[in-house]
Amino acid sequence: MTRFFMEEQSGDALRLTGENFQHARVLRLKPGERLLVCDGQGEEALCVVKEVTASEMELEVLERRASQTEAAVRVSVYMAFPKADKLEHVIQKATELGAYEIVAFPSARCVSRPDEKSLKKKLERWQKIAASAAEQSGRGRIPKVLVLDSFQKALERAAQADKALLFYENEHAVTLRMALEAGSWSTASLLTGPEGGLEEGEVEQARKAGFQVCTLGSRILRCETAPLCALSALMYAAGEF
Amino acid sequence: MTRFFMEEQSGDALRLTGENFQHARVLRLKPGERLLVCDGQGEEALCVVKEVTASEMELEVLERRASQTEAAVRVSVYMAFPKADKLEHVIQKATELGAYEIVAFPSARCVSRPDEKSLKKKLERWQKIAASAAEQSGRGRIPKVLVLDSFQKALERAAQADKALLFYENEHAVTLRMALEAGSWSTASLLTGPEGGLEEGEVEQARKAGFQVCTLGSRILRCETAPLCALSALMYAAGEF
Repeated sequence: MTRFFMEEQSGDALRLTGENFQHARVLRLKPGERLLVCDGQGEEALCVVKEVTASEMELEVLERRASQTEAAVRVSVYMAFPKADKLEHVIQKATELGAYEIVAFPSARCVSRPDEKSLKKKLERWQKIAASAAEQSGRGRIPKVLVLDSFQKALERAAQADKALLFYENEHAVTLRMALEAGSWSTASLLTGPEGGLEEGEVEQARKAGFQVCTLGSRILRCETAPLCALSALMYAAGEF
Repeated sequence: MTRFFMEEQSGDALRLTGENFQHARVLRLKPGERLLVCDGQGEEALCVVKEVTASEMELEVLERRASQTEAAVRVSVYMAFPKADKLEHVIQKATELGAYEIVAFPSARCVSRPDEKSLKKKLERWQKIAASAAEQSGRGRIPKVLVLDSFQKALERAAQADKALLFYENEHAVTLRMALEAGSWSTASLLTGPEGGLEEGEVEQARKAGFQVCTLGSRILRCETAPLCALSALMYAAGEF
């Protein structure tokens, strides 16, 4: 079923206007057809088209319900700023794979980090990428994209999850499986480094903040591959598929 | 340790020449330093640099051994031809993630499939992408990239694995976990469709060929995301990390 995102919803009648209306017109939705209107926070309204005018589409709400495509676990992807368009790639893919939020932060070996001036525009762009990927993959929630201005802040925020996991190429003993099987969890933070990896001191800092340091196997993954591999495995481990 | 790929190797002495030599010179490898020479088939030689001349580097083989970074399971990625550079993306990432081989084939809804003329050049290019990703991720084996000219041939080849799995967005009951937990396995084929998905008739054809049809969860994954998500989960399930 086609889905639309509309933040503000109330009552038994809704109207598709603006971009949503344009989209609905392209799809040639007609009176009597059903569609989903999601609030982007995990709630959705099952609707039927009542009337189509030149500028809007009137809908009747048949049922309000929790989204049926959101993961039962909340997984946050924490990624040290990578170069160029890799962050955009990770935002798109992590959204498809069901991430709850994507958090970017600086670390010692980051060669790229947006300055304050350009950050606002970039965040808008990143949030749009998440919204578009959420729509395409049929999610009921648009993951928030956040930027923190220090590594320590990222650690502190991430460590609040039931499982705070850092993936490090020099860790060979502790696997993701061991980390996940030690105790139950419903929220997790997955933290990965930039192109050059995290520094040993940063990994120690993370341990002190409560992180479990683990491996993603004996092959070295690129910085944009590691978070998506970890997220896929985590969703599998959580029984999502 | 730096690794080089050299197909033909024998005896106790090896020479880095051509591109390998250029690469070694850029890295400023000096006599006494150690490196790995992989045959790209899963065997490697631990070597020490003996002498550096203007055009080659002489090595002494200290030990021949099986690669320590290859997965214990053989997972083949079968992907219906996607558009443009998506296949290249999947080849690179699947190599990092430990795929044994990547097989592309046509299916009903493929909008892109290389003609015979351009295929040879493209295959060369794809194989180079696999070689480069294998080197970067520290693999001992370069996955072969293959192209088959029909869907039926892809099914027949893929079905020879212990687990032949097809991921279909309209399958909601059978999860990847169920498919993997039903009996032991050491080889697997993961088959996914093109942008528009597989046709129902194709999915039935696959079932008849011995495939297990399963879901990757309730979110719709893009055609380039699905094989990498499945491969990550499979490697996790196989105890790789």
